[in-house]
Order: sequence, then structure tokens, then C-alpha cells
Amino acid sequence: MFFSMFFSMETRRVGSGAPEDYDAGLFTRRGRRMWFRPFSSLPLLIVLSGMASASEGMWTLDNLPREDLKRQYGFTPDDAWVDHVMQATVRLAGGCTGSFVSGDGLVLTNHHCVIDCVQDLGSKDDDLVARGVLARQRNEERQCPGMEVNRLESITDVSARVQARTVGLSGKPFNDARQAEIAKIEAECVNDAGAAARCDIVSLYQGARHHLYRYARFQDVRLVFAPEYDVGFFGGDPDNFNFPRFNLDVGLLRVYAQDKPLQSEHYFPIRTAGAQPGELVMTSGHPGSTDRLLTLAQLETLRDTVLPFRLLYAAELRGVLTQYRTQGVEQARQGRTDLFGLENELKARLGAHRALLQPGAMSTRKTEEDTLRAWLSKRVSRADQPGDPWAAIATAQKHWRDRYIEYAMIERNMGFVSQVVTWARLLVRAAEERARPDGERLREFRDANLPALKASLQAETPVHPAYEKVKLEWSLTKLREQLGADHPFVRSLLGKQSPADLASAIVDGSALGTARLRQSLWEGDLESIGTHDDPAIRLARQIEATARPLRDWYEGAVLAVEEKGAEQIAEARFARFGTAVYPDATFSLRLSHGVIRGWQERGEAVAPFTTFAGLYARATDDAPYRLAPAWIDAQPRLDPDTRFNQVSTNDIIGGNSGSPLINAAGELVGLVFDGNIHSLGGDYFYDESVNRAVSVHPLAILAALKTVYPAQHLINEMTLR
Amino acid sequence: MFFSMFFSMETRRVGSGAPEDYDAGLFTRRGRRMWFRPFSSLPLLIVLSGMASASEGMWTLDNLPREDLKRQYGFTPDDAWVDHVMQATVRLAGGCTGSFVSGDGLVLTNHHCVIDCVQDLGSKDDDLVARGVLARQRNEERQCPGMEVNRLESITDVSARVQARTVGLSGKPFNDARQAEIAKIEAECVNDAGAAARCDIVSLYQGARHHLYRYARFQDVRLVFAPEYDVGFFGGDPDNFNFPRFNLDVGLLRVYAQDKPLQSEHYFPIRTAGAQPGELVMTSGHPGSTDRLLTLAQLETLRDTVLPFRLLYAAELRGVLTQYRTQGVEQARQGRTDLFGLENELKARLGAHRALLQPGAMSTRKTEEDTLRAWLSKRVSRADQPGDPWAAIATAQKHWRDRYIEYAMIERNMGFVSQVVTWARLLVRAAEERARPDGERLREFRDANLPALKASLQAETPVHPAYEKVKLEWSLTKLREQLGADHPFVRSLLGKQSPADLASAIVDGSALGTARLRQSLWEGDLESIGTHDDPAIRLARQIEATARPLRDWYEGAVLAVEEKGAEQIAEARFARFGTAVYPDATFSLRLSHGVIRGWQERGEAVAPFTTFAGLYARATDDAPYRLAPAWIDAQPRLDPDTRFNQVSTNDIIGGNSGSPLINAAGELVGLVFDGNIHSLGGDYFYDESVNRAVSVHPLAILAALKTVYPAQHLINEMTLR
Repeated sequence: MFFSMFFSMETRRVGSGAPEDYDAGLFTRRGRRMWFRPFSSLPLLIVLSGMASASEGMWTLDNLPREDLKRQYGFTPDDAWVDHVMQATVRLAGGCTGSFVSGDGLVLTNHHCVIDCVQDLGSKDDDLVARGVLARQRNEERQCPGMEVNRLESITDVSARVQARTVGLSGKPFNDARQAEIAKIEAECVNDAGAAARCDIVSLYQGARHHLYRYARFQDVRLVFAPEYDVGFFGGDPDNFNFPRFNLDVGLLRVYAQDKPLQSEHYFPIRTAGAQPGELVMTSGHPGSTDRLLTLAQLETLRDTVLPFRLLYAAELRGVLTQYRTQGVEQARQGRTDLFGLENELKARLGAHRALLQPGAMSTRKTEEDTLRAWLSKRVSRADQPGDPWAAIATAQKHWRDRYIEYAMIERNMGFVSQVVTWARLLVRAAEERARPDGERLREFRDANLPALKASLQAETPVHPAYEKVKLEWSLTKLREQLGADHPFVRSLLGKQSPADLASAIVDGSALGTARLRQSLWEGDLESIGTHDDPAIRLARQIEATARPLRDWYEGAVLAVEEKGAEQIAEARFARFGTAVYPDATFSLRLSHGVIRGWQERGEAVAPFTTFAGLYARATDDAPYRLAPAWIDAQPRLDPDTRFNQVSTNDIIGGNSGSPLINAAGELVGLVFDGNIHSLGGDYFYDESVNRAVSVHPLAILAALKTVYPAQHLINEMTLR
Repeated sequence: MFFSMFFSMETRRVGSGAPEDYDAGLFTRRGRRMWFRPFSSLPLLIVLSGMASASEGMWTLDNLPREDLKRQYGFTPDDAWVDHVMQATVRLAGGCTGSFVSGDGLVLTNHHCVIDCVQDLGSKDDDLVARGVLARQRNEERQCPGMEVNRLESITDVSARVQARTVGLSGKPFNDARQAEIAKIEAECVNDAGAAARCDIVSLYQGARHHLYRYARFQDVRLVFAPEYDVGFFGGDPDNFNFPRFNLDVGLLRVYAQDKPLQSEHYFPIRTAGAQPGELVMTSGHPGSTDRLLTLAQLETLRDTVLPFRLLYAAELRGVLTQYRTQGVEQARQGRTDLFGLENELKARLGAHRALLQPGAMSTRKTEEDTLRAWLSKRVSRADQPGDPWAAIATAQKHWRDRYIEYAMIERNMGFVSQVVTWARLLVRAAEERARPDGERLREFRDANLPALKASLQAETPVHPAYEKVKLEWSLTKLREQLGADHPFVRSLLGKQSPADLASAIVDGSALGTARLRQSLWEGDLESIGTHDDPAIRLARQIEATARPLRDWYEGAVLAVEEKGAEQIAEARFARFGTAVYPDATFSLRLSHGVIRGWQERGEAVAPFTTFAGLYARATDDAPYRLAPAWIDAQPRLDPDTRFNQVSTNDIIGGNSGSPLINAAGELVGLVFDGNIHSLGGDYFYDESVNRAVSVHPLAILAALKTVYPAQHLINEMTLR
């Protein structure tokens, strides 16, 4: 499924502002979230609409493809419609989308978007993930640790202001100047709202446009409903990204403000019958990132360096976690959501890698590049030409490839998969960064991002020492393996200790498992962090001495070159195509359009709908095809022909998880949770003949709530008006 | 280290005849040996000596580079020298090399070449691998289960005879005809010798030459000495393929004939002082396979399909085994040699993959291809042209890539990593195959290969049920994942069972752990296998129904096309270059020449020798840098300046493990056990500036036997004459 906690962390975006964004993804709540973070340094690019197929595109709400919508579907959204969609859709800061489905702040999203919360609220003695959660009344709705919801309120074009500050600059000065101006704009935007507002500069069209997105920020989000794991992730990894599919990937949250359910007139009523094949359906959501117009050199870096390394790392860790989980019921519980996210990531990345290995992939990109280059060289006078941005990016790629593994293992935390080390690194770096003016900090420590970092630090996230040691020992072993036993950093870290010894010393010796200590350290000063003798903090200081210079090198020698080059290329594209094209995804709100439609697979038609009958036919006695007891009980009372899952041609990507599928009337006709296997190349390409979004049909959601659980109060809330 | 049990199984060779060779590598003794077997279908190719650097080449003993040897070193080997080297060198049928070092059948080879034997002779209560083995007298020398030693006795050119049978044929008829003739020649060669002789057709120069290699076969091989694991694999995976190195990778075996030590005048006396930098040193050994002139299309298959898949599979299994081994002392023991082999394989393959990803790799190959194509098109009249073998191979690659994963998972056993299933599949297929005439069988079941298969079946190889289940369950899960839950074969195999259920049913229910049962089934008839109700046999029959047609498809649509095309290309090369070039490695006896020499690494000189002092400096209290107690005790008595490991420019590859490094006088000056990291591209390229063979210095071997263990009787046997 599209599990954007990983996806959204992969791409470096200028100012999209999600806390998982940027390198500091390593500072998010779970170690797992960083395993796939350190992906690359991929600037934004735009897509040529001339090449787009009918459904292609993730459009910003201020620039919808109105002509296409009118021509293809006779649909003309007015401003009120757009504003309503914007305010009825929310972003889960962890990397998902949700939508309001009642006036009382009820948010519909995916099971896999709330599973971390369920895991955290559960315990060794009460495995909530396994048995599911249903709050029968408001006072049973428990707060999700560290969860944050953002609702977009306005979009303002600030391109001119940002660009005025970077004219004539390049390299680090370019980077610094842009960042300083962005920080300033964001700070002005938040102004007195404090943690209640969130302002992010969203860089679109590779930096050719900068928009200021202002969100309302909600940090009191409570769990209302999550089905049993067996039905919320029915089919598990084998069925993931496949279709036909039979998965109730549904979760419900409620947003609270001042300890009361948030009231809002902007929500999507449910259209029980769903949509019919051929009818216009749209997704409104926050796709994490796409890389549809990276330069050839950047794609080669991904194909030959980044993806092979990341895939192997993930595959081995998958083996470790798989075997760890066989060691007992509690071990199985501890490792479940980590493994689930990892497998999902692995499958998605593998699909992306295979897309890049397609014979035509690189040559197509090269042709596009050559064409634009030729156009550009004719258009501007020689004196005005910005040098060759493609060549500059290609040179930066060489440096990047040479040091990529070192950078990933050290700065991006792949050598230290551990919750306590992650916390420690966050505290150590934050102390340094917060002592600087906002505009001079690493971007993940800008004021706009601090509330989310603080919340993630203070959340009562459980730490399981034995499990923590397994992950830390393993990753330290990888550090030694990848960098070599003779690497000075490895020597300084391990000395005569084994990875197992060091992992034990850190995990057993650190007190960072206590949220209160983390909070007091966060609130302390630079000096107290610099001398604190918690072993995890000591280790983090040791890491920082090598990691910080690496980061500086990266920011200057790679990132700044890529961003500068990308902006130059974007200017050229933008000059040529204007806003008749959509920008790459940036974890900002987008609308995609399409229709319910199956596809042809090896000459056979794949039907667009599945039913409950298919679920029961597929079930066995064992995971991942096991049915929860309530579903076995309910079988006689459920209509087997009830539509369960469906596919549509909408162009989506990780981050769209939990997106509402809506019709032209603004009614909810599905809940997006996945793409099919062909959609896995969606980072780089969209192919309407086979690329499909997978969603839960509203009939299935209502039938489950009515007959299986039952939860008539939620049905009433969602359907009675 | 070069651990050719895997390597030798990767490449399909025509008639090299090792039992691990061919697809039936899946039928070798350990499950592990097959994990990496199903590599690809890579025919033999020759290397252009015009491009070779001074030390490049693995030369057959009937075609040594005499001019080069004379010009570079003033060395002119006579026939007696060559014959002596041939008879003093042996092949370990599992995939290593060894050499006689006394007149009483004492064989020097690597620790990692005898470790399976040590593991098998040990038990839960006596971990021989950990504590090492030293037979203090002959009657303590215990037989290694299933081990076989081959000594080359003669080489005969039978090219004309083989080629006469395939004139004008292509596709399956070509394949069948060649195979029938090869089987006939081999059978005639063995004649009345039975299991005492082994005859293999070795196809050289991509099939342009066929040589008949006749070996004496010895199946009574006993363990004399193996050091403790901590010193025999000091540095473990992190140091593997690296240098400086400090590894006593030494093992001693003794070959018995009629229950007495084999007597032979052909052995290598040890030159205690070793060789000096710049002095000619040669390796005599059985390099498993190289692929130095695959076509561009074949290299692309490796780079884009085969290697990415195999590497990910291995990485995940590595994670599983790593974590399994943490579960207890006994689990650590059970999984040790498997993990060791797997990590070695993974590192080696990763190096090979990185070599293929080098920017110039493919373009260099393309240039060579274009040049030969152009030469060929001018040379022969249009009517004589053999079509376009490159294009034919490229077309076969498309088919191969489409079905590669299915083939690997099913036919090549990657979906069934289990010793009992492997035995069962061997028995089921052997029953079918042995009912056919020799020439019509799959090549691994030809008469020449049956003795080794039988021996591997009858060996008392221990089965650990819990461990067996872990591997089988995991691989069945991969089967389902890779082929999809809806694949007919997966459905037929699993039905409503989970991989765990099926694995338990097979492992708990099968009686194939008993060598006697395996023997009686081997000796039984087709019908008894066809109806036997052991669950592993039943499963094997079920697999066979899908696997056998897949194999037939492969033999016809891929292999035959590749071999035919390769032969045509080889004819062209051969016509152009003759025997002034060396053929690719084929697990047949080769000589490589070079000198002791360090290299430049990132601008720094790497010295060619290490010493005992370096070992002690590197040691920590934990694996893989832990010292065995005897080594800690012996430190004061050992000269710290004793040379320990050394590097030389010899061109070697997996299968050369255990090769003697000899000087012009035929004295042993080192024991080859590894290549440096740069040698990992050696499958495809040789670069004399950085490619190095790593060997143990004779001083270290003698010092260890004298001072650490001590084993004066072995020193006497090796040095007194």
C-alpha cells in the first residue's frame, strides 16, 4: 500500500515543510521511519502535459486542469467547490491523507495510517493491533501519541520575493540566501499563532514557483476505530500492491480542539452506492513526492547507486525482523508495524527500480533532455545562458555517488537504527541548531518545524530494549561492513567493542526512554547537552562530530548544485510550458482525476471491483489470509455481492494513502489505500493503460460498521444529515 | 574468500562435469549450495590476449603462455614440470582446489574448503568448528561425509568428434546431439573403471574446442587438521575480500585408497621462505567460472535481472540466518557455515554487480562485439555466414528475463531451501532420468556424474529440524511472494496451508533424514518413487510436474540458443586469435602466473605482506576479531614479524580456493584463499593494477603448526624428505 511515511521522506524538497521531510527524517518518532528516509537529493521537476495521458497529473488546487475536466467530463469546479475540498481534506503529518466525514471532526483514513497509534496505545498484555479498536463513545477516544493533523487554509504565491533574494548566486550562498528568505516568510506567516498554525513554503516546478501554504495545526488527534490487523491488512505483503484485493484498510480518527471535537461544515458526505465505471472520480490528497523529470544523471544515481544499496539494506533487515518476530508472541507484536512498513517500502522501491531498469526508461529521458536543451540554446542569447545545468548536476552526481553510502550510514542514520539513538541525535543537533538564527539553521530545525519535532520527542513512545538492541546491533554491523573496519569513524565508535557490546551499553545505559527526560533536555541549553553523560547522548555527540561536516559537504557540493540546476531547468520548462503542466508531488495538496476502470493483464481483463465473496474464498486459517473472528461470525449476515475494493485510473503516489475518492458532487465514493503493481513506477512515469489506484468501496465500509462490529453510532454520524 | 561451492554452480558449462555444475546444483548436499546455484546460463567465452595485461589469464595446462613466461621471467616449463604440477594438484569436488604436500596423500587446502566436513563431524555437544581439529595420528583421521577428490590424469582433444555430430543442427536437436556424443565419449573413457575414474568433456573457447579430462576419483578423504574458526576465518565477513588480512585459512586432508594413505611422488615441497616481491609465482588450480566475454545482452541480463534478484534474495536470507543464530548456542552452530557461505557469496556477487555497473563496462563490451562482428562480416562470404549469433542470443535473453524468477524459484529450488526437499527432488528426478539412455538424460544425471550424486545422498549429513523449518518456511514465503498467491503452482502447492504449516508437515513427516532410506530409494525403481508416500517425496513429485517442463523450455529456448550462438562467436574468435588466448574458467585445471606485489589504494601503497604482529593488534574480545585461546597463549613464543598473508597479481577466481602458489622450481610458496575487493569484478574483467590474489605465507603455516597447536608430525611430513 502507499505508505507514505517512508515515501514522503525520500525526497528533499525545498520548503514543503513536513517534519519527516529533509534529512531530519532521521529525527522522526520511530527508527523505522528513517530506514528509508535518506533516499536521495531529488529536486522538483515538472511534467510536460503534452505527453500526459488523460488521467495523468497531480494538480495543485490553484491550478486545476479545468479545460481537461470540462472536455472529458463536462465538469467545471467553481471556487467554492475547490475551497470546500481543500478544507475537507487533511494531511496527517506522519505522511498520510485523511478527510473529514462528519461535522464533528471525524476523519476517515487508512488502517495503515493509524496503525502506529494503535500499536502505541496497546501493550504487551493488550495487543490492540491484533484485536482492533472501537470507541463506543467519545470518552473512549484516546489520544494518538505524537500525531498531528494539518488542514490547508490558504495558498499564496511568494515566488518573486524568494527569487529576488537569490539572483546571481550559486552554491552555498544560493542555498543559504533562499533558505533565509523562506524562513523569514514562514515566520511572518505563523506570526502570533504559535503551534496552532503551520506555514510552509512549497517549492513547485523545480523551484520556478514558491507558494506559501498556511495550515491550521491540530495536535490533539484521537483514535476512534481501527479494524483487526487481519482484515485491515488482509493479504499482507503477498497481496500488497496487487489486485484483485480484499482489504478493509480503514481507520477513523477525531480531531479535537480545546478538548472538544472540531466543528466544521467542510466534510465529504458518503455516497453509499459509490461510483460507476466511467464516472469521473477525483482524489484529493497529499502525494509525497514524485521524480518524474529528474535529469538522466540523477536517474542513473538512483538506478545504479541509491536503489541497489537501499534495497539490499532493507532486504537484510527484513530477514532479521522476520526471524525476530518468530521468537515469541511479544516479539511478534513489537516488530509487527516495523516489518509491515519495511516490506511495503521494499516492494514499492523494487517496483521503482524495475521501472528504471526498463530498456526505454533512460533513453526517453535523454531525448526529453536533449530536446529542451536544444530549445533553450536557441531561445536565449549566448550571454544570458545559465551555463549547462544538466552538466552541473551530472558532476554533482559523481561526488554524491562516491560518498553516498558513507553519508547514508552516518548522517542519515542507517548505521544506528535505534529509537534512543535517534532521540539522542535529535537532541544534540537541535541544541546546536536552535542556538542559531532561524534562517541559518538546517531546514528541519527552522521554527516552522519545531512544534512537530517537540511533539514527537515528548510522545510516550514505548521502547523495547531487547528489540532495540537487535536493530542497533544489526545496523552497527552494517556500518562496519559498509565503511570497513579500518574507517576512522568506525574505529572511533567501536574501538575494541563489538556491535553487540556497544548496542547493549547504549540501550541498557540510556535513560532517554523516559519522555520527561527528553523534554527537559529539549528545553535545556547547548551546554547541558554538550556535557550530559547519558551513553546515547555521548554516542550522538561522537556521531555528530563526523555527521555534521558530512551534512555540510552534502548541502554545498550536492544539494545546492542540484537545486540551482533544477531551478534553471525549471525556468526553461516553465518558459516553454507555463502552468499547463503539473509540478512534481511535494506532500502538498493535489487533485487527480480519473475513472473507475479495470485493465488488461497478460491478455486477461482485470475487473474493477471485488466483493466480500472474494474475501471469504481467499481466506485460510493462517496469516496473512486469516479472518478475524468477528468476520467469520458475520459471514452469514453479510451480502457476498457487496463491493469491497475497486480500482480507478487516478494518478497517485505514497502520501495519497487515506485520500478520499470523490465525485463531482463532492461525495465520498471510495477510500484510496494503494496502487497496483504497475503504479510502482509512478515515481518516474505514469502509464494510464495499467497504472491504477486501489480504494475501499463505501459499501464495504458501511457494511462492516453495520454488521461486523457493529458501530451504528459511527454510521449515523457519517450518513445522517 | 573465494568460496567456489557457490561460484562453481553459477555457470552452466558444457561437460565440465562437477556434480554441482548444471541445474542439478540443486541436488548437492546442502541446501545452501543451491541458494546461489541458479545463476544464469552463461556459456564459455574466450578472452583476447591482445588486450591482456602481463598477469592476466587462466591457462590450460596443454596451452601455457610459454612465450610470455620466457620473455617475462625466463622460465621454460618442460613436459615433466607440467605433468608434475597436474598430478600434484587436486580438485575437491565440492568446488575447491588442493595440492599434495607429502608423498603420503596429505592435501593442503583452505579452512573454508573443509569447514563443511568439520561441521558434519561435530555435534551439538562437541563444536568442532569452534575448537578446531587435529589428528595426532593416522587413526584419528576421520572420513569427511560425501567429500570427493579428483586428480587430473590426462587431457585429450575430442573436438572433431563432438563437432562432427552437430554440423548443421540448431536448437534442441543441436543440444541433444552434442550431449549424446559427450555422454558416449565420457562413458567410453570411464569404461571399466567405475567410480574410480571420472571423465568429463570440458568445453573450451565457448565450445570451439572439446577436451576430454580423465581424473582419478577418490571418495575416501579424511580430515587431518582444521584450525579454530576464530583464526581460520579471522576478520569474518568484514575483512572478507579485504587486505591487509590476517587469516590462517588452512586445512589439511588426507586421501586414502584401499583404506591406506595414497602414495604418490607428485607433491609440492614447501619453500619455507616463500617468494620475494617480483619473483614469478604461479597458481595451479580449478577456477570455477569466468564470464569474460559474454555478449552485451547476456551482461545486461545479469546486471538488470539476475543479479538484482539474487542479491536481494541472499540479503534477506542473510538477515534470517543472522537472527536465527542469535537464538542460542546450538542455533549459532547450526547456521554458522550456511551463513558464512552466504555472506561470502553475497559480497562476491555484489562486487561483480558493481563491476557491471561501472560506466565503461557495457560500452567496452559493445565495442569488442562490434569489432568482431565487422571482422566476421568481411571474412566470410555472405552465404557462409552463420546468421547473427549476437542477435539470436539477445532474443533468447528476452525470453529468459521474462521467466527467470519463475525458473529460479521452481526449477532451481530457490523456493524450497531445505535439505530434505533437495534430497527428495534428486530422488524423484533421478528415477526418471536414470530410466533413460545415458545420452538422453539431463546432463547432471549422466553416468559420469552419478557416483558423486550417490555419494552425496548417502553421506551422513545431519538435519536439524527446527533450522530446516526456518529455511523452508522462509523460502516458501518467497515463492508465494515472487510468483504471487494466485500463481497456479503456488496454489497447488500451498492450497489453504501457510508456508509454516507446509514446512512443518514436510520436515516433521519426512523420513529422508535417514541415509539408509535415501540409499534404498536411490536403488529402487521408478515406480517405487512414483508412489512412495513420504511427504517430501510427494512434494517433490508435485514440484517436478511443473519444474520439468520449465527445465525443458529452458534447455531449448535459452540454453541451446546461447550455446549455439556462443560456439559460432567462438569459432570466429578462434579463427582470429587461435590458442594465443585463454578460455574462460570451467572448473578445470589452470595455471596463472604473476608476482608478489602490493597496489595503490586511494593514493596510498598497500604493502604485499602482513605479519603476526598485525593479527594481535587487530584482535578484540569479540567475533570476528576474537583470538582462539591457543593463539593467545602462543603470542609470547611467536615471532611477531613472521609473514602471515600476502598478495600477488595472479588471475584467479572462485574454485582457486586452496590453490598452491608455486615458484618455478615447483615449490609451494603460498596457499591461495581469497582475492582482494578489486578482484570481485574478475568474473568479467581483470585489471592488473589492482586485482590481487591473497594467500597464506608458508612461514605462517609452519609457525602455527610448530608453536600454536603444536603438530610436529605434520611439519615433519611436509618438510622432511
